[in-house]
Amino acid sequence: MGWTRKDLLSMRELDASEITLLVDTAASLQEIASRDIKKVPALRGKTVVNLFYEASTRTRTSFEIAGKWLSADVINFSASGSSTSKGESFIDTAKNIAAMSPDVVVVRHSSAGAADLLARELPCSIVNAGDGAHEHPTQALLDLLTIREKKGHFEGLHVAIVGDIAHSRVARSDIHGMRKLGMTVTVAGPPTLIPPYVQELGAKVSYRLEDAIGDVDVIMMLRLQQERMRSGLIPSTREYAHYWGLTLDKLARHARPDVLIMHPGPVNRGIELSPEVADGPYSVILDQVSRGVAVRMGVLLLLAGRRSGEAA
Amino acid sequence: MGWTRKDLLSMRELDASEITLLVDTAASLQEIASRDIKKVPALRGKTVVNLFYEASTRTRTSFEIAGKWLSADVINFSASGSSTSKGESFIDTAKNIAAMSPDVVVVRHSSAGAADLLARELPCSIVNAGDGAHEHPTQALLDLLTIREKKGHFEGLHVAIVGDIAHSRVARSDIHGMRKLGMTVTVAGPPTLIPPYVQELGAKVSYRLEDAIGDVDVIMMLRLQQERMRSGLIPSTREYAHYWGLTLDKLARHARPDVLIMHPGPVNRGIELSPEVADGPYSVILDQVSRGVAVRMGVLLLLAGRRSGEAA
Amino acid sequence: MGWTRKDLLSMRELDASEITLLVDTAASLQEIASRDIKKVPALRGKTVVNLFYEASTRTRTSFEIAGKWLSADVINFSASGSSTSKGESFIDTAKNIAAMSPDVVVVRHSSAGAADLLARELPCSIVNAGDGAHEHPTQALLDLLTIREKKGHFEGLHVAIVGDIAHSRVARSDIHGMRKLGMTVTVAGPPTLIPPYVQELGAKVSYRLEDAIGDVDVIMMLRLQQERMRSGLIPSTREYAHYWGLTLDKLARHARPDVLIMHPGPVNRGIELSPEVADGPYSVILDQVSRGVAVRMGVLLLLAGRRSGEAA
Repeated sequence: MGWTRKDLLSMRELDASEITLLVDTAASLQEIASRDIKKVPALRGKTVVNLFYEASTRTRTSFEIAGKWLSADVINFSASGSSTSKGESFIDTAKNIAAMSPDVVVVRHSSAGAADLLARELPCSIVNAGDGAHEHPTQALLDLLTIREKKGHFEGLHVAIVGDIAHSRVARSDIHGMRKLGMTVTVAGPPTLIPPYVQELGAKVSYRLEDAIGDVDVIMMLRLQQERMRSGLIPSTREYAHYWGLTLDKLARHARPDVLIMHPGPVNRGIELSPEVADGPYSVILDQVSRGVAVRMGVLLLLAGRRSGEAA
Repeated sequence: MGWTRKDLLSMRELDASEITLLVDTAASLQEIASRDIKKVPALRGKTVVNLFYEASTRTRTSFEIAGKWLSADVINFSASGSSTSKGESFIDTAKNIAAMSPDVVVVRHSSAGAADLLARELPCSIVNAGDGAHEHPTQALLDLLTIREKKGHFEGLHVAIVGDIAHSRVARSDIHGMRKLGMTVTVAGPPTLIPPYVQELGAKVSYRLEDAIGDVDVIMMLRLQQERMRSGLIPSTREYAHYWGLTLDKLARHARPDVLIMHPGPVNRGIELSPEVADGPYSVILDQVSRGVAVRMGVLLLLAGRRSGEAA
Repeated sequence: MGWTRKDLLSMRELDASEITLLVDTAASLQEIASRDIKKVPALRGKTVVNLFYEASTRTRTSFEIAGKWLSADVINFSASGSSTSKGESFIDTAKNIAAMSPDVVVVRHSSAGAADLLARELPCSIVNAGDGAHEHPTQALLDLLTIREKKGHFEGLHVAIVGDIAHSRVARSDIHGMRKLGMTVTVAGPPTLIPPYVQELGAKVSYRLEDAIGDVDVIMMLRLQQERMRSGLIPSTREYAHYWGLTLDKLARHARPDVLIMHPGPVNRGIELSPEVADGPYSVILDQVSRGVAVRMGVLLLLAGRRSGEAA
């Protein structure tokens, strides 16, 4: 089955076959990274605009490299130094960019729904690169690709997602994707950081790290946002690290020996992950980053390729 | 007749045949935007530097896309984060860039005359992308291209330019260009924002919006700069919007049914334009943005092509 | 003899034949800047990341142009707006970038040793584009290339390096390179700005400008960093300019008529150099900038070419 959507906005809207198509496409593109000449002509003459309203050089760079390896023209448009500072609305800025005929606009914005808004209003393809606490589908896809490469399959795996679930677009996208592919998901964190929606999505809830990591194939540790550290939702960073930080000792005592440790980055070393865990043999954090380029190549290819098909 | 100038600095210096050549060249390149593969090899191996001393992601992006579609290498050099913060003078920074052998430097600067200075001092081609309140010739060219596409010709058309004429490089470039192509121009705005030079350029003056828009083919609404709102040149934003803001009601009562509404962007919605007018059927604001890429392609092609000719 | 190193970190680590290879490679690439089509396919499919933790649009632009002329994909990653602001460590950010499979990472950082750290930790090639007060090898190489082009050879030349030696990575790299190629180096400046290490490197020391410039082929004037002006290491900018600023009068009275005046830029006009000297016939400051692109092309070619060889 081929790809039919104009946009990639969320994991929630995709079905299992679409997610599998995205992961398979990324997997097939992954070997480009190890080629001597990392360049294929697939998107020559296509234009990708990175429209970033939040600081994120890492994700922006991942999309930029993905686009360039596919021979697309990539334009970075960051909100600072733009018409935004002259009071122009988000949608007016986006319509102006769309008038310059890009094929794909990759958008990151602090407001949930920003990508959906652009998808409705603009004729070009939209990729949601993170919208508020809503979704971050390419992160979920690279998590899935990494898991499948390490574990060989999805069905029946059990994943614990640990930390600030309530404010995490990564957690939300992961839960949607993992559930649809037949995985069991347990979320764990302080009660103040567990939102009510997770049980509706079919995730189990745990309020104790040791319980959550006991019988899982993958532990996804979330970043503790610095804002949360200051907001009263957690008593103190030290206490958070004590109860929710993952250490080699806790792993050895409670987790399975073949567990994968994942993290969407950037890592707060010494808070949610001890340095020994972040850099240790369980960790596949840098594999996730590598898979990220392949996933973004796959997404750009399916979206901009679709448009080529239409025009032909 | 071919293009002979090293630089594009102003509409004032061009004659009607040069303006027509620029508009014709842009028109011929416009279809590239709707191609499946938006890429022509015309400027392969040419280097374009965007040297921007004022925040303007929109115009910079338009030049960047234009350059990339023509296969040029495009380098963005913004004043923030540059040697400028180390106290280097504008001309020293520019000479350093020129020593790196670009073919074209596109410059935006808050000082009138900045582009002329570079044109005198540097061997490469200079494009003025806006210098203080002086000129912004590519904006005038995209306005002209948009008008010709919608109206079919220039000669005999009547344009009203409304708002802060005194501080607008767009107004100045437009008046020069439109007058040379045989158009009638009426400028309208509060007396404090109408400069004495407009009558020397052959523009008529009106101090009442309703009078100015009565018998024109095009209404060009200017952006009210936020600085002006704070400076005492207008009594208040609300009063400005009341007297000088364009609404559907004013259009219906005073303007012709086939009038075009233009705006150089970014729009202050609810101040110079009501949202209904900005998004309404009269508005060609986003067409202007699309034409902008074609115009910048044309300008880069004529300037860098000229240099190829020399070298050959 | 071919190039064998993974990285270019310092002039200190190179021997004379390696320096000569770098300078020769740059010299052979220099004519690309004057071609009608400034593009060679040498690094097509290679990815270069500019990882800049200090403001330096000039050096970054030089590397970006060099990479693009060689057909590499060039990605700019600046610390502002990156995960750095989210508290990620330098090495974690760099490992993340490395996970995206670049061939070369060009790094500028305010800490001495930053490039060495990356070279040890990352599998890709690292180019040191300036690390604290430690080294800036591509600047030394472009200085050497400029000198050889103007003087025809290295052996036996005498160079005076004048100004804030203690805080200058340029001076340190220059001294290493020049000494290895058989040149005599005299450093000159106020005693507070002359570090003890220079004599160990075989440089002579002078505390009077007039003595230092008397019998030399090249005068390299260093930039007085604005921080130094405020720090108490010099009594006042005016006094510094009086004793250590180079003027036409001092040149005429003390220097040889064929002396070259060099400066790594950006120049503080009226402080270390009078405008007449900076723009005068002795000055080869803009030649240095032009050579800079050739040197960076050479470095990228040798490093990324080496890697191609490995993979083949």
